[in-house]
Amino acid sequence: MSVLPSTLDNDSCDTAVRASFLHFNADPDQRGDACEYLEDGLMILKQGRIQKLANAADWIDQLPDGCALYDYSGRLVMPGFIDTHCHYPQTEIIASYSPQLLDWLQQYTFPAEEEFSDRDHADKIAAFYCDQMLANGTTSSAVYATVHPQSVDAIFEQAQRRDLCLIAGKVMMDRNAPPQLCDTPESSYRDSSELIQRWHLQGRSYYAVTPRFAPCSSPAQLEVCGRLLDENPDLYLQTHVAENPAEIDWVARLFPEHRSYLDVYDSYGLLGPRSIYGHCIYLDQKDRERMAASGAAIAFCPTSNLFLGSGLFSLEQAQEQNVKLGIATDVGGGTSFSMLQTLAEAFKICQLAGQRLTPLKAFYLATLGGAKSLYLDHRIGNFAVGKEADFVVLDLAATELMQCRMDSAKTLDEQLFALMILGDDRCIQATHIMGRRQYSRAS
Amino acid sequence: MSVLPSTLDNDSCDTAVRASFLHFNADPDQRGDACEYLEDGLMILKQGRIQKLANAADWIDQLPDGCALYDYSGRLVMPGFIDTHCHYPQTEIIASYSPQLLDWLQQYTFPAEEEFSDRDHADKIAAFYCDQMLANGTTSSAVYATVHPQSVDAIFEQAQRRDLCLIAGKVMMDRNAPPQLCDTPESSYRDSSELIQRWHLQGRSYYAVTPRFAPCSSPAQLEVCGRLLDENPDLYLQTHVAENPAEIDWVARLFPEHRSYLDVYDSYGLLGPRSIYGHCIYLDQKDRERMAASGAAIAFCPTSNLFLGSGLFSLEQAQEQNVKLGIATDVGGGTSFSMLQTLAEAFKICQLAGQRLTPLKAFYLATLGGAKSLYLDHRIGNFAVGKEADFVVLDLAATELMQCRMDSAKTLDEQLFALMILGDDRCIQATHIMGRRQYSRAS
Repeated sequence: MSVLPSTLDNDSCDTAVRASFLHFNADPDQRGDACEYLEDGLMILKQGRIQKLANAADWIDQLPDGCALYDYSGRLVMPGFIDTHCHYPQTEIIASYSPQLLDWLQQYTFPAEEEFSDRDHADKIAAFYCDQMLANGTTSSAVYATVHPQSVDAIFEQAQRRDLCLIAGKVMMDRNAPPQLCDTPESSYRDSSELIQRWHLQGRSYYAVTPRFAPCSSPAQLEVCGRLLDENPDLYLQTHVAENPAEIDWVARLFPEHRSYLDVYDSYGLLGPRSIYGHCIYLDQKDRERMAASGAAIAFCPTSNLFLGSGLFSLEQAQEQNVKLGIATDVGGGTSFSMLQTLAEAFKICQLAGQRLTPLKAFYLATLGGAKSLYLDHRIGNFAVGKEADFVVLDLAATELMQCRMDSAKTLDEQLFALMILGDDRCIQATHIMGRRQYSRAS
Repeated sequence: MSVLPSTLDNDSCDTAVRASFLHFNADPDQRGDACEYLEDGLMILKQGRIQKLANAADWIDQLPDGCALYDYSGRLVMPGFIDTHCHYPQTEIIASYSPQLLDWLQQYTFPAEEEFSDRDHADKIAAFYCDQMLANGTTSSAVYATVHPQSVDAIFEQAQRRDLCLIAGKVMMDRNAPPQLCDTPESSYRDSSELIQRWHLQGRSYYAVTPRFAPCSSPAQLEVCGRLLDENPDLYLQTHVAENPAEIDWVARLFPEHRSYLDVYDSYGLLGPRSIYGHCIYLDQKDRERMAASGAAIAFCPTSNLFLGSGLFSLEQAQEQNVKLGIATDVGGGTSFSMLQTLAEAFKICQLAGQRLTPLKAFYLATLGGAKSLYLDHRIGNFAVGKEADFVVLDLAATELMQCRMDSAKTLDEQLFALMILGDDRCIQATHIMGRRQYSRAS
């Protein structure tokens, strides 16, 4: 943590950002003062880290010569959005129709992933994926690659070029998938170990052990996952659980000795801090208690859950048990790279269940909540002093309809709500990584 | 019906449109040849009516001098989208949060509608609403005004300026609403009769008797509705039914002598051809049979049903009974003016119910299906000879993500599906009314 400077000079300040600012220091459902809003604020950065966030009027005249100023007056700056579950190799097949999850994997996902044996293709899609992230204000994500080790190299390389804080890993699958997409327990151990050496904790890169899901991994491979985690205590683990009824039935047939789908993973030691579980729609009370106790996180994937007809995730049940929770696009099962559109669909799912997702809670989940769920809140997620300055510059009146709505919205709450219901990538005026502008809207 | 000309001259042709064309002559779920697609087509118009749709190669050289040519080569032209249920006075409060329907009416809708006693305000919002329609490729809609007669004048005037084929009517409410928004059976009869005289069947304008919904109309006012329909046999009727459980309970308390919510309307003679019923989520089998037998239509409002947590409409049940069906934005309970986004949400609702909405069926519902449900298919809905040329010019690669998806989509079906899942107003390159371009995208 930097010490708050009482005066500014070139030792404490190389960049400043003027805008309205909104960020969170806690869950707004739990604390009334969780949200900080500055109408005309100034954020002071040094080497990409936050030194101070204060009223512009008090500090704007003190900026030292040579300090770069981004003037986003009239725009809203929030911490960059955090996508806790997505598949970059599925970018091209976003919005492809299949009846439900298992058909969709066979018909679109596996053929698309086969192409990633070609490193050039992987590079191309990884670059496009990272650009889409930035164009949507998403500054960090937890990403599945494919079974091919080079697909992991591709995404980390592209992320590092943009200085993105990114979690990724090689998919592990040794059964129930096309042979050309299958590894073995041994090869997946070897490949994953090499990738961990090459990428984990290099700059802002984190490696995640990534078994696709229990039906595609033999018990021997799930053991390998546990071994990798044991050998590398700071690693992440990401996988899918309890997304779809047919999937759950399948797991019950494959692992009849286990109490639940989640229990399969648990029995191999795959539940703990930095474990990220996609979907979690059909967890029971005991599963949720176990998630909470272990420190594992849920990645809630609203557009995907609707698009694939998977079902309605219960935010309320997850919260009651205090399970860590982030929001996720789940591209390409999800239908949008936009965290705004993702929050809108999350809201709708809550509505159908008679639950409420307030705009403050929604943006908390997309920022600090996501960072906490990924155990990255020491680096990112809000504008606390010392954190890395990943942020998004939002234009709340990016379309004529949004302008019309904003003109009649009376409170910040109403404006934020309209932003998440009506907004899309057009609202992203700019995206900054470690203070530097990495994306700027064309007009 | 015009006779198909075998050669073109200025008597048979004043305008031509070159593009890819897609339209329907029947429900694609019922007939394999329901859809006509021309990769490089030419549509020939005379005074805004369709004379011919054929392969461009056969006719492009025959266009007479003085014939205007719109060259949209590489774009897809479809019949204009038809929105079968919406509230123009709620444009400004789109994306306003309330727990469910009845709260939302009290908290946002009624205050917003009160402003329409001011004719200038009504004009301003009516103009904005019509512009949003066009910017989203919607060329016809069935629109609720407010209780104020001048709000009806405003929307018809703006529609006529743009030559839109539009159905609209004065909301009738004589109870359970703020006093300043209430009429009486007598005043609503008088005001509606005058508006019918002034607007119904004037050019492309149609009047709809518009009781908001049974809870806000006394039995005496519902009788007035029936009387207006009896006195003016070509009139429309539009109202809401079976949207929300609390609403349904309320109706059951207000009208205890009726078998069902729908039966209330039926007993006042409000069920028949040109009756448009918004939502219809909780109809039972007997209701649906009655709807089908009467010729009344359902307006399915997917974004609204999700946003207000109303519930999941069953497309399959409606189809099994052969009830007429259109798609609707339900702005401002709905969250988008875009028929593409509305179809995406319709798809998701079907997915949750284990039902399938194919892209062909979706675009059928948004065009010819909507026209049939509104008994306007003698004028609009497809490109049959003699019909009025309301159409939308679609850019299927309007965003980088759509371009990426279209590059890998192999079939027209896949492209149309991606269009409805990923598309929004950016895909609308132009919108034509009676052949004339009334909207053109900025870039």
